[in-house]
Amino acid sequence: MYIICLDLEGIFTPEIWEAVAYKTGIEKLSLTTRDIPDYDMLMNQRLKILRDNDISLNDIQSIIEKMDLLPGAIEFIDWLQLNAQLIIVTDSFVEFIKPFAKKLKYPMIFCHNLEVDKNGFIINYKLRLRDMKKETVRAFKDLNYTIIAIGDSYNDIGMLENADYGILFRPSEKVKQEFPQFQVNTEYTELKNFISNHLGIK
Amino acid sequence: MYIICLDLEGIFTPEIWEAVAYKTGIEKLSLTTRDIPDYDMLMNQRLKILRDNDISLNDIQSIIEKMDLLPGAIEFIDWLQLNAQLIIVTDSFVEFIKPFAKKLKYPMIFCHNLEVDKNGFIINYKLRLRDMKKETVRAFKDLNYTIIAIGDSYNDIGMLENADYGILFRPSEKVKQEFPQFQVNTEYTELKNFISNHLGIK
Repeated sequence: MYIICLDLEGIFTPEIWEAVAYKTGIEKLSLTTRDIPDYDMLMNQRLKILRDNDISLNDIQSIIEKMDLLPGAIEFIDWLQLNAQLIIVTDSFVEFIKPFAKKLKYPMIFCHNLEVDKNGFIINYKLRLRDMKKETVRAFKDLNYTIIAIGDSYNDIGMLENADYGILFRPSEKVKQEFPQFQVNTEYTELKNFISNHLGIK
Repeated sequence: MYIICLDLEGIFTPEIWEAVAYKTGIEKLSLTTRDIPDYDMLMNQRLKILRDNDISLNDIQSIIEKMDLLPGAIEFIDWLQLNAQLIIVTDSFVEFIKPFAKKLKYPMIFCHNLEVDKNGFIINYKLRLRDMKKETVRAFKDLNYTIIAIGDSYNDIGMLENADYGILFRPSEKVKQEFPQFQVNTEYTELKNFISNHLGIK
């Protein structure tokens, strides 16, 4: 029996921080784990920029609520729900992803959470677990599932490496070059075909 | 962060084998883990009866497709999807539960599967994992989740015991007497209130 573990941003949604950068006009917020592999360094930089620019959680949530899923993502999630067991495993935060959860029709989502002060400003982030994506795959394998993991960036590599099958979906050229061991796909139909073949879906 | 682990039959749906017993007129098929705690013994008895009566997987699936969820179950699942992360953990089989998955709007479901011969008769069942319900709770706890587990019968006890909070929902009098350590609820509103209080939902 299979579980499909998928990253959120880049797979189903645009990058949240890129959208925040665009809407606020702060270019440095557009950097992601594709650019800065060290997640702690990246997050601390983001939180400092938010503080320096008086941007609250509420401001970010308003931006996220107006974001659409990627073209074709709805059809892909519909197909996945009908044919497989899926879980979205993201290093984003429960406070950010709620509007997406609805658009994605409430799949299981594993993520982290934020610490917010009484004025609504983000003061810290709390990782539920170190190497959460990798550990999630390991836990499901221990429960006798075969794992197909799909991600796009540095923080997905542990998940992809520990899965039975790891796929890079629309990775940057840099990530693609650095991890040539993974299959690279750019279209949902390719993911569907791969999953169909493995799960025996006709 | 919380995950709510729920049994399927008795919580969201009527007992599948009771429905099969009713539709086929074979009373012995109505026994469940509430009556025979040894799951292997129970399943082997069920499969023998099916064979002896020429009842195929297809016959059972036709019965299941006509079954409704329990009254109030849809509203309960809607509320859960909106407010919490849930997983259904059932000792039933992927071949049985597909019609229910749709009615429940495709939550994550952990289950087992059946072995079917070329004529469509069930010849065996394959547990994905021994003590699957209990092991699922343990795995999620290792991923730093707090677990509220909800079940109704003997095969749920390991799950309830290993969860941070275990609730018996509409258990038989026998189960209720035998496991007085668990909170007993009979209404979805009671479950909602308990979950709301713990997750801080207003």
